[in-house]
Amino acid sequence: MSMDLGITKRADELRAKVRTFIDEKVLPLEDEYHSEVGKLGDRFQFTDRMTEILESLKAESKKAGLWNFWLTDSERGYGLSTVEYAYLAEEMGRSHLAAECFNCSAPDTGNMEVLERYGTDEHKKKWLAPLLEGKIRSAYVMTEPGVASSDATNIALTAELDGDEWVLNGEKYWASGAGDPRCKIFIVMTCTDKDAPRHARHSMILVERGTPGVEILRPMMVFGHDDAPHGHMHIRFTNVRVPKDNLILGVGRGFEVAQGRLGPGRIHHCMRSIGAAERALDLLCKRAMTREAFGKPLAKLGANYDIIAECRIEIEMARLLCLRAAHMMDTLGTEAAQPYISQIKVVAPRMACKVIDEAMQMHGGAGISQDFPLANMWHGQRTLRFADGPDAVHRMVIARTELKKYRSNSV
Amino acid sequence: MSMDLGITKRADELRAKVRTFIDEKVLPLEDEYHSEVGKLGDRFQFTDRMTEILESLKAESKKAGLWNFWLTDSERGYGLSTVEYAYLAEEMGRSHLAAECFNCSAPDTGNMEVLERYGTDEHKKKWLAPLLEGKIRSAYVMTEPGVASSDATNIALTAELDGDEWVLNGEKYWASGAGDPRCKIFIVMTCTDKDAPRHARHSMILVERGTPGVEILRPMMVFGHDDAPHGHMHIRFTNVRVPKDNLILGVGRGFEVAQGRLGPGRIHHCMRSIGAAERALDLLCKRAMTREAFGKPLAKLGANYDIIAECRIEIEMARLLCLRAAHMMDTLGTEAAQPYISQIKVVAPRMACKVIDEAMQMHGGAGISQDFPLANMWHGQRTLRFADGPDAVHRMVIARTELKKYRSNSV
Amino acid sequence: MSMDLGITKRADELRAKVRTFIDEKVLPLEDEYHSEVGKLGDRFQFTDRMTEILESLKAESKKAGLWNFWLTDSERGYGLSTVEYAYLAEEMGRSHLAAECFNCSAPDTGNMEVLERYGTDEHKKKWLAPLLEGKIRSAYVMTEPGVASSDATNIALTAELDGDEWVLNGEKYWASGAGDPRCKIFIVMTCTDKDAPRHARHSMILVERGTPGVEILRPMMVFGHDDAPHGHMHIRFTNVRVPKDNLILGVGRGFEVAQGRLGPGRIHHCMRSIGAAERALDLLCKRAMTREAFGKPLAKLGANYDIIAECRIEIEMARLLCLRAAHMMDTLGTEAAQPYISQIKVVAPRMACKVIDEAMQMHGGAGISQDFPLANMWHGQRTLRFADGPDAVHRMVIARTELKKYRSNSV
Amino acid sequence: MSMDLGITKRADELRAKVRTFIDEKVLPLEDEYHSEVGKLGDRFQFTDRMTEILESLKAESKKAGLWNFWLTDSERGYGLSTVEYAYLAEEMGRSHLAAECFNCSAPDTGNMEVLERYGTDEHKKKWLAPLLEGKIRSAYVMTEPGVASSDATNIALTAELDGDEWVLNGEKYWASGAGDPRCKIFIVMTCTDKDAPRHARHSMILVERGTPGVEILRPMMVFGHDDAPHGHMHIRFTNVRVPKDNLILGVGRGFEVAQGRLGPGRIHHCMRSIGAAERALDLLCKRAMTREAFGKPLAKLGANYDIIAECRIEIEMARLLCLRAAHMMDTLGTEAAQPYISQIKVVAPRMACKVIDEAMQMHGGAGISQDFPLANMWHGQRTLRFADGPDAVHRMVIARTELKKYRSNSV
Repeated sequence: MSMDLGITKRADELRAKVRTFIDEKVLPLEDEYHSEVGKLGDRFQFTDRMTEILESLKAESKKAGLWNFWLTDSERGYGLSTVEYAYLAEEMGRSHLAAECFNCSAPDTGNMEVLERYGTDEHKKKWLAPLLEGKIRSAYVMTEPGVASSDATNIALTAELDGDEWVLNGEKYWASGAGDPRCKIFIVMTCTDKDAPRHARHSMILVERGTPGVEILRPMMVFGHDDAPHGHMHIRFTNVRVPKDNLILGVGRGFEVAQGRLGPGRIHHCMRSIGAAERALDLLCKRAMTREAFGKPLAKLGANYDIIAECRIEIEMARLLCLRAAHMMDTLGTEAAQPYISQIKVVAPRMACKVIDEAMQMHGGAGISQDFPLANMWHGQRTLRFADGPDAVHRMVIARTELKKYRSNSV
Repeated sequence: MSMDLGITKRADELRAKVRTFIDEKVLPLEDEYHSEVGKLGDRFQFTDRMTEILESLKAESKKAGLWNFWLTDSERGYGLSTVEYAYLAEEMGRSHLAAECFNCSAPDTGNMEVLERYGTDEHKKKWLAPLLEGKIRSAYVMTEPGVASSDATNIALTAELDGDEWVLNGEKYWASGAGDPRCKIFIVMTCTDKDAPRHARHSMILVERGTPGVEILRPMMVFGHDDAPHGHMHIRFTNVRVPKDNLILGVGRGFEVAQGRLGPGRIHHCMRSIGAAERALDLLCKRAMTREAFGKPLAKLGANYDIIAECRIEIEMARLLCLRAAHMMDTLGTEAAQPYISQIKVVAPRMACKVIDEAMQMHGGAGISQDFPLANMWHGQRTLRFADGPDAVHRMVIARTELKKYRSNSV
Repeated sequence: MSMDLGITKRADELRAKVRTFIDEKVLPLEDEYHSEVGKLGDRFQFTDRMTEILESLKAESKKAGLWNFWLTDSERGYGLSTVEYAYLAEEMGRSHLAAECFNCSAPDTGNMEVLERYGTDEHKKKWLAPLLEGKIRSAYVMTEPGVASSDATNIALTAELDGDEWVLNGEKYWASGAGDPRCKIFIVMTCTDKDAPRHARHSMILVERGTPGVEILRPMMVFGHDDAPHGHMHIRFTNVRVPKDNLILGVGRGFEVAQGRLGPGRIHHCMRSIGAAERALDLLCKRAMTREAFGKPLAKLGANYDIIAECRIEIEMARLLCLRAAHMMDTLGTEAAQPYISQIKVVAPRMACKVIDEAMQMHGGAGISQDFPLANMWHGQRTLRFADGPDAVHRMVIARTELKKYRSNSV
Repeated sequence: MSMDLGITKRADELRAKVRTFIDEKVLPLEDEYHSEVGKLGDRFQFTDRMTEILESLKAESKKAGLWNFWLTDSERGYGLSTVEYAYLAEEMGRSHLAAECFNCSAPDTGNMEVLERYGTDEHKKKWLAPLLEGKIRSAYVMTEPGVASSDATNIALTAELDGDEWVLNGEKYWASGAGDPRCKIFIVMTCTDKDAPRHARHSMILVERGTPGVEILRPMMVFGHDDAPHGHMHIRFTNVRVPKDNLILGVGRGFEVAQGRLGPGRIHHCMRSIGAAERALDLLCKRAMTREAFGKPLAKLGANYDIIAECRIEIEMARLLCLRAAHMMDTLGTEAAQPYISQIKVVAPRMACKVIDEAMQMHGGAGISQDFPLANMWHGQRTLRFADGPDAVHRMVIARTELKKYRSNSV
């Protein structure tokens, strides 16, 4: 019944290395990287300099052993616990580029998790190995334009078996990372039997990005930004044929795969949200102490002490809730930890949005301008309130769990 | 003690015309206009098609007499009351382009107000006349990078009299509209005597945009967008020389001008915020009734009824508060109406942000994408929480007014 | 399309008289009245002094013509509009005793409304006349211990016709005012046909308080207070026989009566809530200006300006919303005004609770003690969030109205 | 860097015993105890039955070794850590009588802490020993009617040395527990030198309750309740003479004593707040599952799932924050843990108020009646937002700690 949410000695040492790496190597190059992105004509390419920056950072971190931390409880990596990883991911949340530098970025970690758990040896060899090496990237292709994302049972893109091949037809969007030219493999949620029971209709199928019939229609814009070269793509599948063996786990087991994938993926986002909130509060406090109005530092005016205190409190509570969910995953497993993960999934992006919003307000106009990262951070956190399930769905999971105590059959 | 917040017959007729014009003429061209903006290389220019769209709409509305409604209680225009104008401005808030089509857009209306009230005959002839005609545009140049915008008494750009000329030196930013090539005149807040009493240090001076020494450094980005071709520009003034007569009202009377300008300007924004919120709630409800999850329209799921009800309530309260402030301006004058204007200035953008945020959440990922105007609307409303004074300053005004009742000398 | 929410000249004159009467006559006796209540052994009686205080105040106000203002649009009273009455009721909300002094207190006004609208001549002569005179009081007997109050269609107390008499059996509680010895008549919601369509099952029947079989079981406590001598009683009906003609309007028309009654009743509460909130803000500001900590008046510390400003804003918005609903009642009638009434019913008590809570916090411990009326006021306002329909039901009404625009058949 | 917030094996065993004791012994007698209180004429006495109930429960728990758990890190008790105690105190928070049954109730635990840490051997023998035995009770006499409780430096009750005696003059109120006839000793904050530096003006002095000149003026009412026989008394001190040796720690060291006392006291309240919130959520869920409206259990209507989920989330976050503060006390000491204690002091009562409020709303009228403990629980939690420092003061402590990172000298 121990619940140690502290950082272990080894994780603390890794955290120090990760922090130093981010501060000294990543942050100084981040602005240059983003200004290169601004120069792109074809938005979903890399300039030579972008490649150089990213690959050199990855090479360096890999060499230093700061790589694939997310492989919790695995023989392939450090074998960190989820709690230990939480402390590292929080650090990565302070920078936009950091997670990728340590091969810990979404959606690859979730996709690798899927391949590791449910993939065949062939899948692992062909896709997991280069992903673990950081040589390729991947996309998770789930959401559809015609279906409410809160109820995935309606997913409609069809996959039909025709001889030795699956034939896919339909549309998907918000395929994050599918714009990246290095993205080579899609994990696609398909409907293989629309008349089956609700949770047995769907199957997860691997599709190579370049397969004929895969047509990238457009990038979805996030608050007006294409997030190039990563991209959240709208894709049409027209008679896309892939080998029968590209099926993951089994026909009608798509939801099982999705569930297994989502626990860790969700909490990794939350860990980074906490790091983002810390960065925002840091900016807020700096501004509050250095700007003056009415002859006093902003910190001393009006409700600003209260604002700072409430931000600090909310960050602390969110971090503890996140660590507790991580601890539950470590001790009870992902499935049993779902309601705890849903709790932090509701809390973390909302909290981060609030702290960033207060930081923007403290900065005045500057807070939403290019002179500070706050506007961009807010976009990212606000988006998380839909990604991996909207808040309302997570609240439903939490309430159901609560009410189970009061009736044998769930409400 | 009558307080008629209803719409008059004549305003209702105008509203019908304005609404029809927006629905039939403006909205159908809005997407094309924005896609033209997306093609701009030099961001602060107009393509021929942009000019064509805008000028033909303006010509048509001017011809139909739908022009300069904002000139309340004036012989030049309709002589609408502020309450009447509120109903028209709310309509304009539903569309991004609409206000300009009726020559009712910020910052021009505020600037014309300044010239009308405080300008010399020469100023009026040279600048007000073409502004009223919609032939040129203008910018209000107030905010500085080095000074907290909540306390304008620290504004530092200097203006020194040298013979018959004012010589200006310093930096300004967030000069909205200064990117537009049609913008010909700046109204600049300057410091003419930093040792004078707090509210007598500053003077308002007219500067032609093309005057030597005026250097546009960069556009300020609003949540990552340059808002071209309008633009919120960062400008450096280096030994900028303008005629002595470009002074407005008098030396040391800059605050008086600023106060006179801000009342109407602030409330016009709020009126449009209410229109924006109505549009967001309309989108929310449409989505809630047409999307299904778990076998039901979204409207029937979870807290959605409560969300819709709370949005409706908040819009209604904000509209009434706005109309009440407008009524106070009509009956007591702008200065006496300040605390009422501050009330709606705090409420309207916050309310609109909330309604738009709920609408985004109801749409899932689509809500923040290019397929809906919500993300863009949210940016605009969030920005208003700083523009024309941050919320905290307006709350200070309201509280001071409240507490005056309890002590003769203000706290 | 006029919407005059201002106070008319005649209402303003009445308001001045009402205010003076409350300030000079009612408030000075209120404490004494309450301390008399504290002495009661049998809690639901009057001491001689209580009777003396109340009856002399009533005699005086009746003589001054300050009586039965609530009879809006009626030939019997002033014929005030609902908007005019709102201004008077707000004044009454500042004092616990005031409404009764002007014969404007719940539940009598609603009950008189029922008798006036739906009663027979006999009902009017026997019950309405003495109620209008302030000679007796009445109770509205609706809520049942076994049924969710949010869904009145389940009301279960039975009334069966046996010859020329209705025979009632069942239990009711929260019968407000039924503890008062002057209460002579109950209006009872009964189930006359549980198999009829949902809204035709119930009938409204008049029951004299002293009828055999009516047994008052206990007072319901409101936050631990019995609200003597008024009382919110739990009552058992055992074979209670009343004449057939005691039926109001018709068999199965109970809901129609309830709906007609509730509109005005609900909004009267809301008008008084606004008066209560004004009193709380007044106390808050006085405390903030007269207490010191850290060498400054509390007003100048931390977030207190912001708190005061937000309270002022919320009161203003609620008042306008209330006046707008009143105006709708005056112009469209009670039924068409229902969604507007639901809006203010959600807003007013919640707003008042918030303002009172802030006032309590500003006072420290004193704020919840007998030295200030705030604790008692909070109890009253919090109770209103259930009374006459819980908030959630009113939000449902508002949302349904909103969504009707989007589909012909309601959701 | 371990931060184990789990429950230890020994604490888990104790918790099981405490829980069983409360469920089987305390709760069944609680209603009877309260109905005895209702019979009291002189409110600040015990009926024989009250004494019998309380003393038998205490005797039984003491015999079972369930006693003085609060003595953390002490040789006198179990030597529980603060984290371990938190789990036990949470259980006690579910019942009004429970804490006293285990000799763990306020204000005695805090007072015993003072005597243990700062008392002389004589103090310990005379007062601490019988308190530890549960033979007497005590009061902490701090707050004054004339002074803002947020700024204790203004405390004005004077103590002057006259020969071998301190002579006290002044008024105090909110002396919790001072109404209890078993209360024998007061710890009184006095001003011994109003001209000394802010934090050296005050001294803590022991005063026997029966000392001549101590006059209990009245009980302070908490939301209209006298909380008999405990009582929060208003006391006048007129030339009260006590021996010189009744001084605690030293002249001018009153603040030091107060600070040492308040850490544990504050967090004990918070631990119990969490237990209270759990009880409220339990009642809420039971009601939601057993009441029906519109043909469904309340749980399935409208926003109720969301409400339940948010309550669960807030409780979890508050518990973790509380345990973290407890852990800080265990590892860093009370003084270093102050900002963490302030965090939970802001969060716990506010959270409990919110959960209880939602539970009341789910119950309709019943929720605020004598049929459920919710109204009483709400009063208790709301009061905690002033007790031991109002929220605003704790936020100030938190903000100062945060901002220390940004400037060497505190703001």
